[in-house]
Amino acid sequence: MTNPFFKNHGPINILEILKILNLNSDKDIKSQNIYNISDLFNSTKKDITFFHSTKYKQLAKNTKASFCITTNNLKNELPSNCIPLVVDNVLVKTSILTCKFYPEAVDDNFDETVIDIAQSNYKEKVIFGKNVLIGKNVLIGSNCSIGHNTIIEKNVSIGNNCSIGSNSIIRNTLIENNVKILDNCTIGKQGFGFFPISNKNLRYPHIGIVQIKDNCEIGCGVTIDRGSMSNTVIGKNTFLDNQIHIAHNVKIGDNAIIAGQVGIAGSSILGKNVKIGGQAGISGHLKIGNNVEIAGGSGVIKDISDNSKVMGYPAKNIRKFLKENK
Amino acid sequence: MTNPFFKNHGPINILEILKILNLNSDKDIKSQNIYNISDLFNSTKKDITFFHSTKYKQLAKNTKASFCITTNNLKNELPSNCIPLVVDNVLVKTSILTCKFYPEAVDDNFDETVIDIAQSNYKEKVIFGKNVLIGKNVLIGSNCSIGHNTIIEKNVSIGNNCSIGSNSIIRNTLIENNVKILDNCTIGKQGFGFFPISNKNLRYPHIGIVQIKDNCEIGCGVTIDRGSMSNTVIGKNTFLDNQIHIAHNVKIGDNAIIAGQVGIAGSSILGKNVKIGGQAGISGHLKIGNNVEIAGGSGVIKDISDNSKVMGYPAKNIRKFLKENK
Amino acid sequence: MTNPFFKNHGPINILEILKILNLNSDKDIKSQNIYNISDLFNSTKKDITFFHSTKYKQLAKNTKASFCITTNNLKNELPSNCIPLVVDNVLVKTSILTCKFYPEAVDDNFDETVIDIAQSNYKEKVIFGKNVLIGKNVLIGSNCSIGHNTIIEKNVSIGNNCSIGSNSIIRNTLIENNVKILDNCTIGKQGFGFFPISNKNLRYPHIGIVQIKDNCEIGCGVTIDRGSMSNTVIGKNTFLDNQIHIAHNVKIGDNAIIAGQVGIAGSSILGKNVKIGGQAGISGHLKIGNNVEIAGGSGVIKDISDNSKVMGYPAKNIRKFLKENK
Repeated sequence: MTNPFFKNHGPINILEILKILNLNSDKDIKSQNIYNISDLFNSTKKDITFFHSTKYKQLAKNTKASFCITTNNLKNELPSNCIPLVVDNVLVKTSILTCKFYPEAVDDNFDETVIDIAQSNYKEKVIFGKNVLIGKNVLIGSNCSIGHNTIIEKNVSIGNNCSIGSNSIIRNTLIENNVKILDNCTIGKQGFGFFPISNKNLRYPHIGIVQIKDNCEIGCGVTIDRGSMSNTVIGKNTFLDNQIHIAHNVKIGDNAIIAGQVGIAGSSILGKNVKIGGQAGISGHLKIGNNVEIAGGSGVIKDISDNSKVMGYPAKNIRKFLKENK
Repeated sequence: MTNPFFKNHGPINILEILKILNLNSDKDIKSQNIYNISDLFNSTKKDITFFHSTKYKQLAKNTKASFCITTNNLKNELPSNCIPLVVDNVLVKTSILTCKFYPEAVDDNFDETVIDIAQSNYKEKVIFGKNVLIGKNVLIGSNCSIGHNTIIEKNVSIGNNCSIGSNSIIRNTLIENNVKILDNCTIGKQGFGFFPISNKNLRYPHIGIVQIKDNCEIGCGVTIDRGSMSNTVIGKNTFLDNQIHIAHNVKIGDNAIIAGQVGIAGSSILGKNVKIGGQAGISGHLKIGNNVEIAGGSGVIKDISDNSKVMGYPAKNIRKFLKENK
Repeated sequence: MTNPFFKNHGPINILEILKILNLNSDKDIKSQNIYNISDLFNSTKKDITFFHSTKYKQLAKNTKASFCITTNNLKNELPSNCIPLVVDNVLVKTSILTCKFYPEAVDDNFDETVIDIAQSNYKEKVIFGKNVLIGKNVLIGSNCSIGHNTIIEKNVSIGNNCSIGSNSIIRNTLIENNVKILDNCTIGKQGFGFFPISNKNLRYPHIGIVQIKDNCEIGCGVTIDRGSMSNTVIGKNTFLDNQIHIAHNVKIGDNAIIAGQVGIAGSSILGKNVKIGGQAGISGHLKIGNNVEIAGGSGVIKDISDNSKVMGYPAKNIRKFLKENK
């Protein structure tokens, strides 16, 4: 996948990468350019990837990457086309290398490049409120409106027939057509991902973006963080109520209906037609099937299979829960 | 009830209404003007209403409306003064007709009519910050202040001695006297109400408003959605802490004390002197009595009678809960 | 403790204080100046304090204050150096007196003193976005940036190398070095503290501030309220995710990691290295030890000792919880 927004400063020669990772050179590794760093699934044979947990064993077996940052315990899971680079801390080293490919993705300060939309090329094309700011590398389709005080920072693409409310902040986001984003939202900032280090945590870069597909509605006060190595995705015709928090790398399928104050932790993947009641929470790195219904207030801490209805904390079959809690 | 803000485009002749609802004309139904669409309780004999659930049987029996959109199963519950119009999907048809009476209530884009308060008639009367915007049909009483970047969109009435914080957005709201609304609030946008349709949900209009009565305080980052067919009401001297979400049609009685991050789902009705601890949630369409105390973190999924103290999820008698969870 | 921001209008003579508290003069109490009102722990012998609950018996025994507003039941717990002033309602009387020392701390309207940063002395020193407002008594260190539409109201000190996002509002806050505060935050407003009175609650003053120590990161849409009699403190290198609510007087130790939508109620104290999963809630006035881990979605309603891992509502030992909820 070519990154649509963050500039890839590669290629970087693999011999240079060994130095960056603090590894000795190895006669089996010959000088060659590496074009990108990506996850196990998306890497091509010109790329380097990383593998840090047995949870991803299946993906590792099928990776096309030529090199993989991994541990001694995991290295034998990799296919023969992929040379393991064994390190102590896979995620820290991956982070350090990602910063070399994408140095702009680690710092998330406000966008100084914005200008008032009234002074931009969009002044004729877009219906806009007072004090609307537009950054560089912003595309806006036809028949769109943007409310007062809203900031469209750099790296945003907005399709046709979209309406953005007031006081919202959007960056690093790809919005398709007929999307409504209401007031006070913050979309596309880096996720809550870092390495905890006493006295000074280490932030890693977030090179993913937020994708919001056709016909979605995003309520007021919603935060959607962009992905770290992959994207955060809101499926087609998915409606989010107010004050929802969607963490980095989450992928929500089409036609989801998610009520107020729901929180979805990092990297969880939801199928199609999922319904979630207010204030429910979903832990990180879970898989929620298609047509799943999660009752309001539930706490989901394990995968949920297709067509299930769950309730409670930890969430279980809704009939069982209600029977046990009469 | 005359709608204070949304313009009623009626009357519409009943023969025209039959066409809008895709119904055949009926010799028993004679040409006559219908002046409004309203709920079972508020309709007068010049109005049309709707009835879609046995839950509202008592209200249906006493409705004064001359016509009612309903189903074949429910039509016999209506009194003789009220002619049933039988349809497949009551709510969808009600929505379509409501859009004819109130076409401005379905679209919730930002208000383009606003002007800087410094250029308005309120510049002498109100204490205001930088970049304050005021829409059409806004009334502000004496001794009020409005903070920086706050947007008072069209259809807002503010009483005397009110203070509004900074970065807040208010529309379609009737605020009484001595009310404080703090920073970053979003009040009066349409609720999370729509008909789920694969690939393209259908939004229905929200013709209700938000009412905030005397002496209330609304914390930072609070969202209060306006009602669909009735109003969202915050009773006198009710205090809301930060980050609370109040969905459409909710009615909260006087003297409530509601702590941070509480969520109340659509159409629930709370009595007087209710106390709710932080992060508690109340499901939709419930009735919470007077003097009820709900412990922080609880999830209320059924009606609660007067003077009860509840805790847990599902919320139950607090002594029982604590005994069972020692 | 000298209050860094709110002006102390003392000293007030103790004979005047007796009148303010509606107490008769007492021949044992001689004319003398009282310089401050403070809590049991921080009071010096020139101060007056208050004592309203047996929970604080140990602190009361050791207070250095010369006078203490208290009840008939509690007065004998005070040391001989401290003369009890017996009243019916300790907190109401304390509030009334605090208003005399700190009249500016009870009203929290928007700051009218702000000016555009581009017209301030900071225009050369700080990197700033559009429409940034700066109040009186604001200090900003070197190498700082402040995003668009952000309002730094009066009484804020920002150290070196800090970055503040866009659309945030900060007041009465002491920010140390290398701190990041992201978008849409509201920091330093008065807490949700008042005396419930039918029809018209009585707000008490909040003379505490918010302290955010070195290397912290505060996510988007976070609210942190300032303290009432003491400060709200965020320890060094503590990272808060999005949409978190920190109530007044809360003290969080160093190196905490707190995930999205967590809420911490008033006056709770957390040790060092605490980890809290998303949507967890902590009740007020609790003590959470060092190295405690609280699972996402948990509701903590009692003190937690050092090194514990807890889960559930009410939160208990995590292994026990998971065993009971298989």
